[in-house]
Amino acid sequence: MESPIVIPKQHKAAVYDNPGTVSTEVKLVDTPEPGYGQVLINLTHSGVCHSDFGVMTNSWKVLPYPIQPGQVGGHEGVGKVVKLGPGCENVQVKVGDRVGVKWVSGVCGTCLPCLSGSDGLCLNGKISGYYTPGTFQQYVLGPVDYVTPIPEGVSSEAAAPLLCAGVTVYAALRRSRAQAGNFVVISGAGGGLGHLATQLGSRGLGLRIIGIDHGSKADLVKESGAEAFIDITKFPKDDNGAAIAEHVKSLTGGHGAHAVIVCTASNVAYGQAIPMLRFNGVLVCVGIPEGELEAIRTASPAPIIFKQISIEGSAVGNRRDAIETLDFAARGVVTPHIQVEKMDKLTAVFEEMHRGQLNGRVVLDLS
Amino acid sequence: MESPIVIPKQHKAAVYDNPGTVSTEVKLVDTPEPGYGQVLINLTHSGVCHSDFGVMTNSWKVLPYPIQPGQVGGHEGVGKVVKLGPGCENVQVKVGDRVGVKWVSGVCGTCLPCLSGSDGLCLNGKISGYYTPGTFQQYVLGPVDYVTPIPEGVSSEAAAPLLCAGVTVYAALRRSRAQAGNFVVISGAGGGLGHLATQLGSRGLGLRIIGIDHGSKADLVKESGAEAFIDITKFPKDDNGAAIAEHVKSLTGGHGAHAVIVCTASNVAYGQAIPMLRFNGVLVCVGIPEGELEAIRTASPAPIIFKQISIEGSAVGNRRDAIETLDFAARGVVTPHIQVEKMDKLTAVFEEMHRGQLNGRVVLDLS
Amino acid sequence: MESPIVIPKQHKAAVYDNPGTVSTEVKLVDTPEPGYGQVLINLTHSGVCHSDFGVMTNSWKVLPYPIQPGQVGGHEGVGKVVKLGPGCENVQVKVGDRVGVKWVSGVCGTCLPCLSGSDGLCLNGKISGYYTPGTFQQYVLGPVDYVTPIPEGVSSEAAAPLLCAGVTVYAALRRSRAQAGNFVVISGAGGGLGHLATQLGSRGLGLRIIGIDHGSKADLVKESGAEAFIDITKFPKDDNGAAIAEHVKSLTGGHGAHAVIVCTASNVAYGQAIPMLRFNGVLVCVGIPEGELEAIRTASPAPIIFKQISIEGSAVGNRRDAIETLDFAARGVVTPHIQVEKMDKLTAVFEEMHRGQLNGRVVLDLS
Amino acid sequence: MESPIVIPKQHKAAVYDNPGTVSTEVKLVDTPEPGYGQVLINLTHSGVCHSDFGVMTNSWKVLPYPIQPGQVGGHEGVGKVVKLGPGCENVQVKVGDRVGVKWVSGVCGTCLPCLSGSDGLCLNGKISGYYTPGTFQQYVLGPVDYVTPIPEGVSSEAAAPLLCAGVTVYAALRRSRAQAGNFVVISGAGGGLGHLATQLGSRGLGLRIIGIDHGSKADLVKESGAEAFIDITKFPKDDNGAAIAEHVKSLTGGHGAHAVIVCTASNVAYGQAIPMLRFNGVLVCVGIPEGELEAIRTASPAPIIFKQISIEGSAVGNRRDAIETLDFAARGVVTPHIQVEKMDKLTAVFEEMHRGQLNGRVVLDLS
Repeated sequence: MESPIVIPKQHKAAVYDNPGTVSTEVKLVDTPEPGYGQVLINLTHSGVCHSDFGVMTNSWKVLPYPIQPGQVGGHEGVGKVVKLGPGCENVQVKVGDRVGVKWVSGVCGTCLPCLSGSDGLCLNGKISGYYTPGTFQQYVLGPVDYVTPIPEGVSSEAAAPLLCAGVTVYAALRRSRAQAGNFVVISGAGGGLGHLATQLGSRGLGLRIIGIDHGSKADLVKESGAEAFIDITKFPKDDNGAAIAEHVKSLTGGHGAHAVIVCTASNVAYGQAIPMLRFNGVLVCVGIPEGELEAIRTASPAPIIFKQISIEGSAVGNRRDAIETLDFAARGVVTPHIQVEKMDKLTAVFEEMHRGQLNGRVVLDLS
Repeated sequence: MESPIVIPKQHKAAVYDNPGTVSTEVKLVDTPEPGYGQVLINLTHSGVCHSDFGVMTNSWKVLPYPIQPGQVGGHEGVGKVVKLGPGCENVQVKVGDRVGVKWVSGVCGTCLPCLSGSDGLCLNGKISGYYTPGTFQQYVLGPVDYVTPIPEGVSSEAAAPLLCAGVTVYAALRRSRAQAGNFVVISGAGGGLGHLATQLGSRGLGLRIIGIDHGSKADLVKESGAEAFIDITKFPKDDNGAAIAEHVKSLTGGHGAHAVIVCTASNVAYGQAIPMLRFNGVLVCVGIPEGELEAIRTASPAPIIFKQISIEGSAVGNRRDAIETLDFAARGVVTPHIQVEKMDKLTAVFEEMHRGQLNGRVVLDLS
Repeated sequence: MESPIVIPKQHKAAVYDNPGTVSTEVKLVDTPEPGYGQVLINLTHSGVCHSDFGVMTNSWKVLPYPIQPGQVGGHEGVGKVVKLGPGCENVQVKVGDRVGVKWVSGVCGTCLPCLSGSDGLCLNGKISGYYTPGTFQQYVLGPVDYVTPIPEGVSSEAAAPLLCAGVTVYAALRRSRAQAGNFVVISGAGGGLGHLATQLGSRGLGLRIIGIDHGSKADLVKESGAEAFIDITKFPKDDNGAAIAEHVKSLTGGHGAHAVIVCTASNVAYGQAIPMLRFNGVLVCVGIPEGELEAIRTASPAPIIFKQISIEGSAVGNRRDAIETLDFAARGVVTPHIQVEKMDKLTAVFEEMHRGQLNGRVVLDLS
Repeated sequence: MESPIVIPKQHKAAVYDNPGTVSTEVKLVDTPEPGYGQVLINLTHSGVCHSDFGVMTNSWKVLPYPIQPGQVGGHEGVGKVVKLGPGCENVQVKVGDRVGVKWVSGVCGTCLPCLSGSDGLCLNGKISGYYTPGTFQQYVLGPVDYVTPIPEGVSSEAAAPLLCAGVTVYAALRRSRAQAGNFVVISGAGGGLGHLATQLGSRGLGLRIIGIDHGSKADLVKESGAEAFIDITKFPKDDNGAAIAEHVKSLTGGHGAHAVIVCTASNVAYGQAIPMLRFNGVLVCVGIPEGELEAIRTASPAPIIFKQISIEGSAVGNRRDAIETLDFAARGVVTPHIQVEKMDKLTAVFEEMHRGQLNGRVVLDLS
C-alpha cells in the first residue's frame, strides 16, 4: 500500500533577494494550490542554466522588465505530480507521474506560432523563473497540458538539463537539415550545449560530427562521439576562418561541412563558420553573445549567394522536441555531464559560473 | 517546302575589344562547328544584363581572372538550332527547335552540386560570355543536353531576359519557402528582377506581394500584381528599418511578412529586411553589391534566434527552374518589361546602364 | 450604445428523435452555461453535411456506437460568442466575435497527433453532433482555444460549409504536394467538395486544375477555375481508366498529372486514378465509400513502384488549415455554392440529400 | 612502376544461349572500344540478382520485349576503368579508378525525371543486361558520367550487390520519411534486401528497426541491428494482420510504427502492413510479386484516410543514392551477406535461386 501524499503548507525556495546581483536566499514560501488545468509538482531536481544568471543579474537585454524581488528562478525542474487541479481529467498526466518544467513553462495554444508547431515561440508564452515562479524550490505549479512527461530510463538529475540544453541542441540539429551520413561541425563541442549536440548528432541522428573547442576538451568531445576534433587554439583568429575552413575541407572530402552549429556565444566562432560550409550548407545560430547585442559580420550576401548558404536561427525547441530528446536519453543515446549540488549552494554555483569555473552543468538536489 | 538552312562561314559578333572598359565592337568572326554533344544555334535575341557590365569592366571581384580581349559577352540568348554535332541522336532537341543559352551555359553533370539538383552551382560550370563565347553574336554553340527549350507562346525577345532574371527570381521565390496565401515583401519590386518576382509571385504562386521601391515605380509594381506598394523614399534610412517594419506589420495582420526577397544590390535594403519578418520568416538574398564585397550587418544572432529567422542565399537557379519559369511565361503569367535595340547599340546600352538611365531590360535584336 | 446580450433559458434545436432513421424534430432545449475554458455561441447558420446523414442513420460504420436519441446533430456552425466561461481571459476570443464549430469540435492538445500538428486526428477528439451536441440549434458550447475565428469578408452562410468541406479539400490539396504550375486532376470536380477544391486549387494555389465529373457539371467546374473539363460519361468504365489516362496525358504535355484528388466516394474513380499520374505522382484519397468499407483494388505495388507513386489518405484538416481556408475565402478566392433553408426544413433536406436531389450545399438559417 | 594495361581482343562472357530458360554459356566475345563519353571497365565481380532471373526467363512481364539470344546479363558489376573514350577529359573518372555498373546503366540527363533528381526513372534509361550488355563478363562499357565511383574501404565483392540491393533499400528508407528515433518495420528483414535495410536503417540512419521474417532468420536480423524480431510463423495469416499489428503496437508505445517497408514480394506481407502503422504512417512498397501482376487489396481508402496513411512506391534509387550507400559501406555501416562463386557456376546459381536454396547474395568472381 502506498503511503498517502502529504503536501506541506510551506516549502523551501531559493528566492532572488537582491535582484540585479548574484544573490539568492533559501527560505520558506507558501505552497500554492493548483488552479484549473494545473498540476502541483514536488520537484526533486533543477538544473542551473546560464540564462538564470542573465535573468537574475538583469544582464539579458531581451527581457522586457527587470527581475522582481522575491521571484524564484530556475527552468529545468523535475519532480512528481502530487495534486491535480480541476479540469485535468482528460489528460494523460496522473498523480505520481514524473514530469518536467522547462524554459517556456506554458503557452496559449492559439497564437500563430502555437498553431504552426512552434510553441517555443508562443506570443503569450511564460518563462519559468521570470514570469512565473521557477524551479529552484520544492513545489511548483505547471499546466497539465504542457509539463513534459519524463520516461523511465532517465534519472531525474539527468532529465533536468536535458529539458533545456538537450532540447535546444536537438531542435538545432533538426533545423540544420543535415541527413544521416552528413558532416556537421559543432562549434563549442565541449561545452554544456556542445557535448549534448555531439552525442545526439553522432549517436542519435547518424551524423558525422567534427567538434571544435579548446584542446582541453578533446577527450570529452571524442567520448561524446565526434569523428574528429579541432583544437581552436592552434588556428589563427584573424584570418576570417580561412585556416580552419581548409582543415574542415580536408576532413570532408574537399567539400566542406553540410552544417555548422554554433553552440558557443562567441562572435569569433560565428565569423569562422560560413567558410567551413559546402554549397547549400546551413549555419545554425544557437549561442547568443551576452551584454549589448552587437551585430556581427558573418553575413555578407556575396558568399552566401554563390554557395547558396542558409543561416538559421534556432530557439529553445518545442514540446515535441522535448519528448523526443528525452526518448533518446531513455535509450542511452545522450547523457549530460553533470555535477549535483545542494540547494543552499546556489549562490556559490552562480559565482563559480560567472568565473567560468564550472565543469559540466550543475543540478540542484532539492530534497 | 522549307528552304534549306544555310550556315555562313562568318557571322557578326559584338566583341570586347578593350576589356576593363565600356567598349564593344561589332565584327565578323568565324562560325564554329558543333563538337560531340553540341548544337549550333542561330541566335536572334540576347538580353543585356548588369552582370555582363561587371564581367566586361572587371568590376565583379568574384571571377577568377579578367575578361580576355576578343571574348564575346552575353548570357541571355535565344535562337534556333541549325546543326547538331555527333552524339545528339538520343536527346529531344532537333534542328529547327528554339532554345536558349543562360548564365551557366554548360555543366559537368557529375559533381556533387549537379547530383544534388543544384546544377546552377556546378563545380565545373561554364559561364556564358566569360569562359565561353557568349550571346552577343549571331551563332553560338551549346551542349545539346543543357540548352533550354523555349515553349510556344513566349516570344524570343521575352524569353531572353527570362532565362536569367526570370529564372533567378523564380528560384528565389521557391527558396523563400513561402506558401500560397503568404505575404512576401519584394525589395526593389520595380527593378529588372523585382517586377518579374512580383508577377511570378502574385500571379503564378498565389503569394500576396508587398512591393518596395521608389515612388516612381508604384504603377509598374501594382500592375505587376502587388497587393501593396511601399514608397521607400517616405521612410527614414537610419532607423534600422523600424518604421518600414511597423508598416509591413500593419499590412500583414500584425505579424510581419513570411518572407522578404531582396532583389536590389543595396545594403540599406538588407539592413531593413529582418525586422519586417514574422517568426520563422525567411530572408532571401539575391542582389549583390558591386565593387568590394563589403560585409553587411544584417545578421545579428540574437533577433535571428528569437524569431527563428532563416537567411537564404539564392543563386541563378537550375535547369528545371528555367523550364518552369518559361512554362509560366507561356501561360502569360510573367511578361518582362523590355526595350529592343539593334546589336550595334550595345556600347551605348552599357553606358546608359552605367548611368542608371535604362527603363526595363534591354534585348538586342541580332538579326 | 450596444444593447445588452440576453441569453434565453431555452432555445430551438433540431434533435434526432428517432435515431437510425431520417427524422429530426425542432423543439426547445435548455441553454447550457459555459464551463471552464468554454464559450457559449449564438449560432446563426449551420451547414448540412452528408456525414450528418451517416451519423443520424447509423450507416457510417467507423463510429464506435449508434447515435443517441435526443442528440443534436450538425458540425458546420457559425455564430457569435455571447458568453465566456472562467479561464478564457488570456485567449484572443471575446464576446461578440464571430466563430465557427467544425467536425472535430475539441481536442486534448497533448496526444501525439496533437503534438505533431495533426489535431484533426486527435486521439481524444470530440466530433460535433455525435459526441457533443452539434450545430443544428441556436446555442452551442465550444472550447475557447479551439473554435475557429471567422474573418471579416466571409458571410456566415458561406463560412459554415467552408469549415468542413473547405478545410477538407484545402488539406487534401496541401497533402498532394503539388506546386504552383502543376497539373492536378479533381475527380468529382462539380460536387460539394470538388468545386471548392477546384476554386482553391486554381485561384488560390496556382494549380492547373483538370476537373472530372458528369457532363451536367461542366459549367460549374469551368466557372470554378478548371483549365479543362473531362466528361466522365464519355469514357468506358471497364478499361481500368486507360482511355481517361490517355486523355489526361494529352492535356499535360504527355506526362500525366502531378496529382489526382478523388473527392467523390466512388470506387470507379479510385480505380481510374493511378494511370493518370506521372512519375512521382500523388493520389490523394478524400471520398469514402459508404456502407460496408469494402476494399478497393487501386493499389497494385508494381505500377506504384515503377512510377514511384504516392497514395495519401487525407482526413478533415486541422485548426490552421481552417484558418487558412477562411483567409482565402475572405479574399474572394473560394465561394461555396449554397442554398439557405429554414431550420424546420432539416428532415426534408436530409430526404432530398438521400435521393441525390440537392443542388449545392444546404445551409440552415437558425435565426 | 605500374605495368602497362593490356586489353585483350576478346574476353569471357556468360551469354544467354537459350533465352526464356535457365541457361547461360561462358564463351569468348569481342571486347568493345569505348565511344564518345564512354569508359571501358575490366570487371572483377558481378552480383547475381533475382531480376536477372526474371529477365532471362521472360517471367517479368513489365519489360517490353523478350530477352535476345546472345545477350549478356547482369547489373551489379564492379571493376577498374582501363580505357577512356573521347570526350572524357572533364570528368573525375580516370584510368585505374574502381567503378560500378548498376541496374540503370545510363540515362539521358534531359527528361523530366532526370531533371527532377529521379534519374532512376529516366524515360530513356538503359537497363544493364537487357538493353545493353551486362556485367556477367570481364569487360563492359559504361557512360563516364554515370558509372558509380567505388570508395576505398569497400571490397569489390561487397560493392557489387550494394549497387542494386543496397541502393534500393537506401532509397526506400529515405522515401519512408522516417526520422532518427522512429520505429520502422522491415518486412522480410532476413532477405537479400531486408538485411541491408536493417543494417542501414539501424546503424546508418538511427532508426529503431523491427524485423519480420521466418524464425530461422532471427539471428541474422538481430545481428543486422534490429531492436526487435517478429517470427511471422507464429501469427495467423488470415486475420488481415490484426495480431501482428497488436504486437507491433506493444513494441512501439501503443502507437504503431512510423513506417513499414515491405522488402519481400509477398502479397500477405502487403496485406498486413497498414494495420501496423500509426497516424501519418508510411508504407513503402519495394518487393514486387512475380508472374502476373495481380492487384492486391491492401489499400482501402477508409483506414488510409482516417489515419492519414501514405503508400509510397520506391524504385531502384538514383546516382546520388548509390554514392551515399557506398559511403555508408565504406564506413562499415552496411556489409552484405555474400557468397562468392566462379563465373562458370552461373547457371547452377540461377537453378539454386529458383529452388530458394541460396543463402545470401551470390557474387561472381570474373577473374
